[in-house]
Amino acid sequence: MKPIRTAIFGTGFMGRVHLEAGRRTEGVEVAAVVGRNEDAARRLATGFFVPSTNTDYREVLRDKNIEAVHICTPNAQHFSMAKDALESGKHVLCEKPLTTSVAESEELVALASRQGLRNCVCHNLRYYPVVQQMRRLREAGELGEILVVQGTYSQDWLLYDTDWNWRVDSKAGGPSRCMADIGSHWFDLAEHLTGLRVTSLSADLQTFHRVRKQPKHSVETFANKMMGPKDYVETPVDTEDFGSVVFQMGNRTRGSMTASQVSAGRKNNFRMEIYGSKASVAWDQERPDELWVGHRDTGNAVFVKDPSLLLPGARSYADLPGGHSEGYDDTFKQLFRRFYASIASSGTPEYPQFVDGSRQLKILNSVLESHRTRRWVDVPPVTS
Amino acid sequence: MKPIRTAIFGTGFMGRVHLEAGRRTEGVEVAAVVGRNEDAARRLATGFFVPSTNTDYREVLRDKNIEAVHICTPNAQHFSMAKDALESGKHVLCEKPLTTSVAESEELVALASRQGLRNCVCHNLRYYPVVQQMRRLREAGELGEILVVQGTYSQDWLLYDTDWNWRVDSKAGGPSRCMADIGSHWFDLAEHLTGLRVTSLSADLQTFHRVRKQPKHSVETFANKMMGPKDYVETPVDTEDFGSVVFQMGNRTRGSMTASQVSAGRKNNFRMEIYGSKASVAWDQERPDELWVGHRDTGNAVFVKDPSLLLPGARSYADLPGGHSEGYDDTFKQLFRRFYASIASSGTPEYPQFVDGSRQLKILNSVLESHRTRRWVDVPPVTS
Amino acid sequence: MKPIRTAIFGTGFMGRVHLEAGRRTEGVEVAAVVGRNEDAARRLATGFFVPSTNTDYREVLRDKNIEAVHICTPNAQHFSMAKDALESGKHVLCEKPLTTSVAESEELVALASRQGLRNCVCHNLRYYPVVQQMRRLREAGELGEILVVQGTYSQDWLLYDTDWNWRVDSKAGGPSRCMADIGSHWFDLAEHLTGLRVTSLSADLQTFHRVRKQPKHSVETFANKMMGPKDYVETPVDTEDFGSVVFQMGNRTRGSMTASQVSAGRKNNFRMEIYGSKASVAWDQERPDELWVGHRDTGNAVFVKDPSLLLPGARSYADLPGGHSEGYDDTFKQLFRRFYASIASSGTPEYPQFVDGSRQLKILNSVLESHRTRRWVDVPPVTS
Amino acid sequence: MKPIRTAIFGTGFMGRVHLEAGRRTEGVEVAAVVGRNEDAARRLATGFFVPSTNTDYREVLRDKNIEAVHICTPNAQHFSMAKDALESGKHVLCEKPLTTSVAESEELVALASRQGLRNCVCHNLRYYPVVQQMRRLREAGELGEILVVQGTYSQDWLLYDTDWNWRVDSKAGGPSRCMADIGSHWFDLAEHLTGLRVTSLSADLQTFHRVRKQPKHSVETFANKMMGPKDYVETPVDTEDFGSVVFQMGNRTRGSMTASQVSAGRKNNFRMEIYGSKASVAWDQERPDELWVGHRDTGNAVFVKDPSLLLPGARSYADLPGGHSEGYDDTFKQLFRRFYASIASSGTPEYPQFVDGSRQLKILNSVLESHRTRRWVDVPPVTS
Repeated sequence: MKPIRTAIFGTGFMGRVHLEAGRRTEGVEVAAVVGRNEDAARRLATGFFVPSTNTDYREVLRDKNIEAVHICTPNAQHFSMAKDALESGKHVLCEKPLTTSVAESEELVALASRQGLRNCVCHNLRYYPVVQQMRRLREAGELGEILVVQGTYSQDWLLYDTDWNWRVDSKAGGPSRCMADIGSHWFDLAEHLTGLRVTSLSADLQTFHRVRKQPKHSVETFANKMMGPKDYVETPVDTEDFGSVVFQMGNRTRGSMTASQVSAGRKNNFRMEIYGSKASVAWDQERPDELWVGHRDTGNAVFVKDPSLLLPGARSYADLPGGHSEGYDDTFKQLFRRFYASIASSGTPEYPQFVDGSRQLKILNSVLESHRTRRWVDVPPVTS
Repeated sequence: MKPIRTAIFGTGFMGRVHLEAGRRTEGVEVAAVVGRNEDAARRLATGFFVPSTNTDYREVLRDKNIEAVHICTPNAQHFSMAKDALESGKHVLCEKPLTTSVAESEELVALASRQGLRNCVCHNLRYYPVVQQMRRLREAGELGEILVVQGTYSQDWLLYDTDWNWRVDSKAGGPSRCMADIGSHWFDLAEHLTGLRVTSLSADLQTFHRVRKQPKHSVETFANKMMGPKDYVETPVDTEDFGSVVFQMGNRTRGSMTASQVSAGRKNNFRMEIYGSKASVAWDQERPDELWVGHRDTGNAVFVKDPSLLLPGARSYADLPGGHSEGYDDTFKQLFRRFYASIASSGTPEYPQFVDGSRQLKILNSVLESHRTRRWVDVPPVTS
Repeated sequence: MKPIRTAIFGTGFMGRVHLEAGRRTEGVEVAAVVGRNEDAARRLATGFFVPSTNTDYREVLRDKNIEAVHICTPNAQHFSMAKDALESGKHVLCEKPLTTSVAESEELVALASRQGLRNCVCHNLRYYPVVQQMRRLREAGELGEILVVQGTYSQDWLLYDTDWNWRVDSKAGGPSRCMADIGSHWFDLAEHLTGLRVTSLSADLQTFHRVRKQPKHSVETFANKMMGPKDYVETPVDTEDFGSVVFQMGNRTRGSMTASQVSAGRKNNFRMEIYGSKASVAWDQERPDELWVGHRDTGNAVFVKDPSLLLPGARSYADLPGGHSEGYDDTFKQLFRRFYASIASSGTPEYPQFVDGSRQLKILNSVLESHRTRRWVDVPPVTS
Repeated sequence: MKPIRTAIFGTGFMGRVHLEAGRRTEGVEVAAVVGRNEDAARRLATGFFVPSTNTDYREVLRDKNIEAVHICTPNAQHFSMAKDALESGKHVLCEKPLTTSVAESEELVALASRQGLRNCVCHNLRYYPVVQQMRRLREAGELGEILVVQGTYSQDWLLYDTDWNWRVDSKAGGPSRCMADIGSHWFDLAEHLTGLRVTSLSADLQTFHRVRKQPKHSVETFANKMMGPKDYVETPVDTEDFGSVVFQMGNRTRGSMTASQVSAGRKNNFRMEIYGSKASVAWDQERPDELWVGHRDTGNAVFVKDPSLLLPGARSYADLPGGHSEGYDDTFKQLFRRFYASIASSGTPEYPQFVDGSRQLKILNSVLESHRTRRWVDVPPVTS
């Protein structure tokens, strides 16, 4: 089997996650690591026998042997990197959010389509086995009509005004922070799992810390919690710490969600509850192998992930037997496996594409507009 | 000790709860039971040695020996019963919602004040021991500034269009159903626990079943689930099955809640999460003896109710040792104990009063208006 | 309806629990409270309008109008009180353990039978609604053959050597403490729920604190946790803090349990898991309204107590609708209701009788013997 | 950096787990896969670019470039493979149980020592980050004296008599099945986490299915659940389905555990609770990122794994930020990383060695003897 050669752009937390998952994907060889910091790139590459490192991604794009690239850099760099990669004929996996504006995201969608290249935005939460079980239960009609979707994505890593990360800075992360970074995961799953679309919403955003103490040296995502005192600069902040959205999915279905990076004690608390006319499902990322199924007329069910209990369409998302937990890293393995399989085939992608990433930008845009105007805002429909 | 004599109006689910709790309240003697159905009243009274029953509450109000009354009838009857009782010089405990309109509730507040009578609206959720622990932690500054309040009150007993109860009918229950019946509990606790006030909100209500199959005979609250097939009449419904609210508490604090009677698998799922700048608390009524306390810099805490672990101000709300569960009925005992103690004293009431019940009507009014106008609505401030 | 008059012997924690539950039992009037301390008895009696108090239970036994008595005194007093009560023609409810020796317990069983009087030992845990659901599921064959029974009863109120209560003293509590006080609850449920009998066992007991600091004044059960420093006497202890038992129920079924009063963080952690050839059930007293049902071939079930979800034989044990929690006090109401109903009828008792209390003494005896001899010991069979 | 070349023996469930984890271990190159079935070996090798496959492990042992081997074959093959590998100068990682007899295990311990080679037995459960937190809390004295250790390892994959796997057959798996396969994990952690040794025990084993229906074709571990009806042979079974052990760790500490492969609904339910004189810890493998810490005098703590909350000695076991779950596969990555680091260094191994695997065989031997003789049996002490 000829390996598919790929490159990782970015050497931070996400870059390493992609590299490890790449090593676990059959038929894939990570052939280059790109990082602004040469040493960081080399350290990462050496341990995993990646033959080449570079500080200029454009050079890597010129390498004919590389067929695909993973973009794991700060949000504001996604657009140009993805654009250049597509124009160089590379398949692209891009971390979310796809870009920092709707227009950019639409340009990428169109470009990928013209080029006939595979494109993916990494909403990895879809790849927990019991999340796919939720989807398959809904598709099988087990939930009936979807009445209500609600939940939250709450973290605490930016609770203090001494917490800092490039995401806080709108120039690096875009105009929205909390909603873009984690709220986008929530809405992606809400639409993926229900098969419905958000049609209108009323949103309220809040920036509790309008000034934060920015360390003079850069801080890797989540690493702020481990730092001792540092040299700080008081820096104004224009991205939100918290968002709350009431929404409608068509004439019938109603929803509610919050996203927060300032909720003490919540480390990575993604919760989604979907209530149908026949049954309900709920999932909490902090207990990723568990699925709650609510019933009116019998006991509720709690599934501990077990391939023998999954519907056929969900089964291939679990590699391990019942009760052998599959975690965050494993979702990337599942995602990459499907992405790389699609390169060699003509099948329908079983992963979120740029058009899905662009969809999130549009919802985000409506959230920002609703917050600004204090009005209900319609979300543009999806045209196929 | 001379007993305080009291009467129970209403012989349904709530009437019985009040009667039993009355029997457990020291110094209190339930002296009369009032019910439209003479047999039901007599059955209830006989077992507990209540000396008198009546189908006309006005007769009972003329009894000089009776000092207080419990109003446990459908919402639309609360106003006139409470008014008559106050005018007859009786102290009044009224089930929530206090009335079906703001104007009526304000009239009762004024009347009770003029008469100098004790008055209480039965937001019993305040009386779970760990709920008071939440309050005392906040009062002690342990949570810091309150940033976010979120949660839900979800049930499933009205999920099917064959489910019916007087609350569905706006003539008996008032213009709001789900928000009035259970949403009011949620907002009462939100304000009680944070010490803050809801200042503005954006709400969305939904009636999934615009027609329900009403049985020809009356159905006690919650009893619909146990019924077999019946004679039905197709009846239009104008009260909501579900509500969702985004709200602000002043310039800083943000909130989000849903209330639902159509969420399969949720039997009585009241959840409230309060996130502060120092710590967080969360509580779920389905596990009433547990309190979650969230921390950024140490493990989260889970309290199993234990008097030795409660702050002094919360300790008297627990009668039993650690891990000996105190449930729904026990909250009424705690409430009544404080209500009746206040009759004999001049102290500040340690229970929700009519003014708190009226407050809920005002919030409810804003919810209905926001839903109707699809706009943010300011909630009238509390004037002292 | 002529009330059944009853008396409460004992004014400690359990005495008050019985009094309150008595007030909630239809048709029952608590007519006397007996306590060594006159003041304590009077305080308890006055609030609940109990007409009479006494320091001598024998006087109360001479009262012809009193038909039944509740024995809530330290274990060593149970035998003589119960014996005298039965000889006086009173029906008897006795707290567990029934006596402090097998011989005494057998004498009471025989006496109650000769007198034709109702007799009950208060294993209240049977009365949680979902516990009865476990029993009814097993009776209906839903679990198949019972393979394994396992669990624990763990508390922490005697963790420190400064913790003291009369139960620590073998003269007041009998030769076994932890196994008698809480282990007996566990084995009672194990046999009640499976319908099987413990046939042999291997046990190991441990007294971690062989000397404890006994306060010079008496301490109510559980109240030690709330005390400040006191005058102490160093007192040798010969009752166990912890016990562990491996057991067999016939040729097939196997079991394992521990009981502990020194397990930090466990307030009242009774857990029982019953594994059958078709399905399993598990219950934890700290979440008394939840029942876990384990399946091999489908998701596990978690029942939140809801009368509409209970099997017919379990339904009458729940008074409240789904998700309205029923706690520790409510189990006594359920127990007393059935006990007093049986006085007026000739039906089979739906409660644990003295013969069941005696059974626990026999198991306890085997536990002590196995620990002493370090050998497997056969438990005497039940002869009908 | 020169890679360390390694080989995987075995192409079943565990072989694949080792191969993937090997790919994620920096500096390690999997150079050969060995399997009885050539096709299976080739399929596994190809996807991950493993250059060589073989059906004869001895040939691979002759390869000078291979420095280490992973033994992932059925238990009965461990001894000869490990022996040959050590004699060929290879470092060895062996799946548990190390061998099927104490004598064999001691021979391997001695041989590895003589050869000066690194040796590891894969008790992967030690590598969950919060498990190391438990260990570090104990080492830091936070638990005080250890009083009680209790728990279970329960699964349901062999519940039916139609379930089959090579482990059922004592010729392939050794004389003990359930205790050897999963009970050994439990006792390894009990000793690892407490720092104490099991000194004596009383055990009871049970084989519920004395005859099982063996499929005519081999079945991969756990795969039985997914199979449809097959050609069966009724086969007598002499290995246990369930075991229960009461044990002592010296004069003070007491313990209790069960292991089961027939507990409906339990997929991989490893639970361990350690109660100390100051605090307690509890962990459940089905929620691997959560740690419960029990307190007598304050709320209990629940840690969601977060590197910033781990003690320094536990921190390096977590690769991901708070709430990003690390699962079963990740424990092997952590284990291999430490094993391979030790090859290049002279440091003390931070992993279970053959001497630990041999320890488990001795405990197992005592369990079998105690069951056979129905007596307490002393476990041989560890001599250093």
